[in-house]
Amino acid sequence: MQLSPAIQELIQALKVLPGVGPKSAQRMAFQLLERQREGAQRLAQALTQAVEKVGHCNDCRTLTESPQCVICAHPARQQSGMLCIVETPADVLAIEQTGQYQGRYFVLMGHLSPLDGIGPEDIGLDVLAQRLSSEAIQEIILATNPTVEGEATAHYIAELARQAHIKTSRIAHGVPVGGELEYVDQATLGHAFSGRKIIEAN
Amino acid sequence: MQLSPAIQELIQALKVLPGVGPKSAQRMAFQLLERQREGAQRLAQALTQAVEKVGHCNDCRTLTESPQCVICAHPARQQSGMLCIVETPADVLAIEQTGQYQGRYFVLMGHLSPLDGIGPEDIGLDVLAQRLSSEAIQEIILATNPTVEGEATAHYIAELARQAHIKTSRIAHGVPVGGELEYVDQATLGHAFSGRKIIEAN
Ligand SMILES: [Zn+2]
Ligand SMILES: [Zn+2]
Repeated sequence: MQLSPAIQELIQALKVLPGVGPKSAQRMAFQLLERQREGAQRLAQALTQAVEKVGHCNDCRTLTESPQCVICAHPARQQSGMLCIVETPADVLAIEQTGQYQGRYFVLMGHLSPLDGIGPEDIGLDVLAQRLSSEAIQEIILATNPTVEGEATAHYIAELARQAHIKTSRIAHGVPVGGELEYVDQATLGHAFSGRKIIEAN
Repeated sequence: MQLSPAIQELIQALKVLPGVGPKSAQRMAFQLLERQREGAQRLAQALTQAVEKVGHCNDCRTLTESPQCVICAHPARQQSGMLCIVETPADVLAIEQTGQYQGRYFVLMGHLSPLDGIGPEDIGLDVLAQRLSSEAIQEIILATNPTVEGEATAHYIAELARQAHIKTSRIAHGVPVGGELEYVDQATLGHAFSGRKIIEAN
């Protein structure tokens, strides 16, 4: 049976969402058209606006609609001398929710992955190296995911920091190995911060 | 921490989707903005188009963007004399996928629910009564859900059909094919027993 082209296209388009397969896309399409037409219009508007307005922070690369994000623009954060390196904007949110960290961030928007052709410049490490040499940074906290790629990325950045003579720490492995930062509970993430270890220059 | 207003609004708007809570809305928003901007634009477009174009079939009430849906417009279906009553467009799809039915449908877009103020006219039963008296319908198949409301709705329509002197049947309910008795709920098992069929000695 052929559904109307507009319904078919909506079902196809909904499958772009993470975790949404053909069956739930169909369920979503029908529910929106049967009962949530205003919600569907609002969603269309929000998607258009977000895609149009949201770019990356010039300083930390996180998603934001101003040239500099709220955290980077915060004077106390700027004076903290702390720079926490994370993989994604969701990681920033997760760390902010612990309330344990008052410094700035650098958001890689990914991790090193030579097999996928993702090298240092693809995750902004050239920008980071620049910042390390030009700013007064006292400590770098490496909060990449405890995965193979996250560890390799942390290692690479630790070396950049060593060359710039900046103290570097790695968040403690209270975070379950193989897990993703975004899904860790606040208490564990808080422990991981307070238990961070200085990485000795060797 | 404050996310950019456009990102916050996108997260809010995504929560209109069935089964999407705050956490998965956030994950969806970040993924769209980080990696799926074209997909997000396509989705916005599809939502706008679908809301604008998709209405209800004049004959069967299902979702369609033409005045009459493909099934209602099909000559062989029109001549079948069969009318299957279902609650939703998704039910039509499910029945079509069996390939076992070649008649037409009437889609209630809900079921009777006096407590929620949903009466006969809200589910198109006035339109249905009109069709029963003006069209050559040989059999009505009641395929509403086997829930309290679905059964009450089926009962109400059976009475309409009786007044119009039209043969009426209810789809069989029982143990799903391939299912194990042990895992079937009591109500289904009850239906399976009360609806049992005599096996003729041959
Ligand atoms: Zn920033
Ligand atoms: Zn129709």
